[in-house]
Amino acid sequence: MRSNLRVRMVAEFLGTAFLVAAVVGSGIMAERLANGNGALALLANTIATGAALVVLILTLGPISGAHFNPVVSVADAMEGDWIGPVFFRTSPRNSPVHCRNDGGARHVWDSADFRVAPHPGGAGQFLSEFIATFGLLCVIWGCSRSRPGIVPFAVGGYITAAYWFTASTSFANPAVTIARSLSDTFAGIRPADVPLFIVAQFAGGIAATILFRWLVPGLASSAKDMVVHHAAEIELPARPR
Amino acid sequence: MRSNLRVRMVAEFLGTAFLVAAVVGSGIMAERLANGNGALALLANTIATGAALVVLILTLGPISGAHFNPVVSVADAMEGDWIGPVFFRTSPRNSPVHCRNDGGARHVWDSADFRVAPHPGGAGQFLSEFIATFGLLCVIWGCSRSRPGIVPFAVGGYITAAYWFTASTSFANPAVTIARSLSDTFAGIRPADVPLFIVAQFAGGIAATILFRWLVPGLASSAKDMVVHHAAEIELPARPR
Amino acid sequence: MRSNLRVRMVAEFLGTAFLVAAVVGSGIMAERLANGNGALALLANTIATGAALVVLILTLGPISGAHFNPVVSVADAMEGDWIGPVFFRTSPRNSPVHCRNDGGARHVWDSADFRVAPHPGGAGQFLSEFIATFGLLCVIWGCSRSRPGIVPFAVGGYITAAYWFTASTSFANPAVTIARSLSDTFAGIRPADVPLFIVAQFAGGIAATILFRWLVPGLASSAKDMVVHHAAEIELPARPR
Amino acid sequence: MRSNLRVRMVAEFLGTAFLVAAVVGSGIMAERLANGNGALALLANTIATGAALVVLILTLGPISGAHFNPVVSVADAMEGDWIGPVFFRTSPRNSPVHCRNDGGARHVWDSADFRVAPHPGGAGQFLSEFIATFGLLCVIWGCSRSRPGIVPFAVGGYITAAYWFTASTSFANPAVTIARSLSDTFAGIRPADVPLFIVAQFAGGIAATILFRWLVPGLASSAKDMVVHHAAEIELPARPR
Repeated sequence: MRSNLRVRMVAEFLGTAFLVAAVVGSGIMAERLANGNGALALLANTIATGAALVVLILTLGPISGAHFNPVVSVADAMEGDWIGPVFFRTSPRNSPVHCRNDGGARHVWDSADFRVAPHPGGAGQFLSEFIATFGLLCVIWGCSRSRPGIVPFAVGGYITAAYWFTASTSFANPAVTIARSLSDTFAGIRPADVPLFIVAQFAGGIAATILFRWLVPGLASSAKDMVVHHAAEIELPARPR
Repeated sequence: MRSNLRVRMVAEFLGTAFLVAAVVGSGIMAERLANGNGALALLANTIATGAALVVLILTLGPISGAHFNPVVSVADAMEGDWIGPVFFRTSPRNSPVHCRNDGGARHVWDSADFRVAPHPGGAGQFLSEFIATFGLLCVIWGCSRSRPGIVPFAVGGYITAAYWFTASTSFANPAVTIARSLSDTFAGIRPADVPLFIVAQFAGGIAATILFRWLVPGLASSAKDMVVHHAAEIELPARPR
Repeated sequence: MRSNLRVRMVAEFLGTAFLVAAVVGSGIMAERLANGNGALALLANTIATGAALVVLILTLGPISGAHFNPVVSVADAMEGDWIGPVFFRTSPRNSPVHCRNDGGARHVWDSADFRVAPHPGGAGQFLSEFIATFGLLCVIWGCSRSRPGIVPFAVGGYITAAYWFTASTSFANPAVTIARSLSDTFAGIRPADVPLFIVAQFAGGIAATILFRWLVPGLASSAKDMVVHHAAEIELPARPR
Repeated sequence: MRSNLRVRMVAEFLGTAFLVAAVVGSGIMAERLANGNGALALLANTIATGAALVVLILTLGPISGAHFNPVVSVADAMEGDWIGPVFFRTSPRNSPVHCRNDGGARHVWDSADFRVAPHPGGAGQFLSEFIATFGLLCVIWGCSRSRPGIVPFAVGGYITAAYWFTASTSFANPAVTIARSLSDTFAGIRPADVPLFIVAQFAGGIAATILFRWLVPGLASSAKDMVVHHAAEIELPARPR
């Protein structure tokens, strides 16, 4: 009944590739067109990313679960289901603020003082990563329990909001954090900060999972029905797969 | 079947914390990035707040009802259901117009003449509060009766629109009104105006509740099935909790 | 089973009042905050109006059908159902372009050359009114037949798009057309043009209704189940009203 | 049970006409109002197009399948269902960047350096067309399999995102590509490039279809139930048509 590992890995790779394209590509285009207005660029980036997330989870969720994120995979495993190897998810934080390599666009951002959190990693960044990932897993567990079919919209909506209320360097994703530490971008993370970021992300995701175990005692026993096969189970009761 | 009081209070606290973070955080970031354009800052604040409300009600509604607002709790009690102590809800009115404490951003707003209603409390503010809360409860009672699963989207959509058609100092929430009177912000309310605001909010919410009793005679008898457990009841007929 | 006439009229009045507030209020606030950028003001007006329409139809549709528009009532009557007297609907065309009476804001728009259609009424305006109302009724008949619960979102989405692809003075609503001819606004209609506008709107709505009779032969026989009670019928099979 | 060919062709023509009006009309109006800000114009164009796509597929999907695109028709035929002649679909790529013929607005765009891909056709454009159409068909096959009722929202959401992450001259539609080669617009395609574009689009659509055959083995056998009649089948089990 469940897709085999190879199929699921291809689906996760496909979804990650399109998510990266949506996040980075929309960030670059928005920045080029925005005439230096950071709020407008971020708004376009937000809408494109939120829409892409909804669509990608709708499209690939029934096949692979649409994790794209090691924290999601670990939290899923905590609740009794293990989809496969740790997959990658591109965080919405990979926003125009972070993804630029082209010199022409950089001056737009350099001249704007729009950073809420201090740039270097520290307690604020750690807290921001913790909160962003904590909220993401709260949304996943809270919605997938009672309304699995709504999860794609809830995750897209959460990211749409989280773009604006967390400090701009939060990723909510260890894979992206590692990738960012290897790139020479404006907001690149110092390699020395990577471990702290990843600890914060896993801590946030695990804390949310533990909290929802207490909030919803039956969560663990029904977890295997939730994230992975939600769409298929809910809407495909009698169709051949 | 229903969650106990402690679980529900934690859920209400969690939702309120994230809603405050979304409303205030998105307002601050939008203001910093908007280069002084108030419409753009408010648009970003609107989209982030609307998305956050949808997601938070989807996530926590099945656990605590996602009231976050004393007026909602009182209206719920009027219809035969009493969830618990009066919880807090951060109004979307806690917008970039209100939440600034930082001097750097203030000049942007000080130089813009964007206030629809006169700043000091008065009949206009009272009316605005009445209408905003009246509309919120109309939406809740109108939708929760026939389509409980749509309530999160309806409330988010209402707030998205209400941001733009009510005077900017409306809160639709007594808890936020009190909190605002204690803060030293640009659009802080004078403590002397607080009672009038709260009266207007409760009056609006109660008026909507009474109106819908007349519009939908069966409302009271089915009220206990509505706001609190909507998602669980509708979509979780046979799943262990 | 159906609401009585008085209840439905109150619901239609309530919905019209909030729709007017959303359309006009958001237009005024957007214009004041937009620093003269017409696209930004219209975008905020669009989002607020679309969200308000979705919410108002969700809230009041089960009570009164949420017509708000004589053309909708007539088309509904053509298909075998007559809800009551012709109610009023505020068209989204009542946008910031039209609703201003304050001199301070007018210069913003006067200095911008953003009109697609020529200002005086004529063949272009007639065609625009025909198309706008034709499209609205196509959406209503097309969606209400197969997915009545989706109608509020389809109408809101149609208006969100129609704001941008029809000439700015289109209303899609005879009631609003008459009201506009009585007001002294920037884009006020000359009283002499009113009859032509109304003819175009009814012609568009009737043409769409006739077209869908041919496209979907069973439309008339199932029409009475559609617009008015959609939400209740679909989602309230066993709940007391 | 299925609509006859003439009805379906009329529905496809109607949908194409409204989609063209939405895409081109919103692009023109957004450009005129945006005071030269390309990101704002594209954002308005994106929102209007996405909303129009959702609504048109909701409205006409139950009648004709709402293809509007030869690639969709061919992919549908590959899976065992053939709706009729190749219909036309206006791509969202027909954005403000492309549709201008009026000299007044052109300078706005000429002075902005917002092109991600090089203007002349080449490997980058070919790849962009391939990816855009590949993604569109992935979304259609991925969602229509498990949740046919969600397809209109998924396609609208995909286009909303794809506007921002593909190079601006991608169309994802052979019909639009041909039409564009005949027009004298800013970003008109050279006739010599048309064959390559069309090859890329069909290649992308066919690649996605083959991929999903492997990802979801039962896809072909259940394909005839998917795209065309989704809404009717899911939500109209017992209603006369």
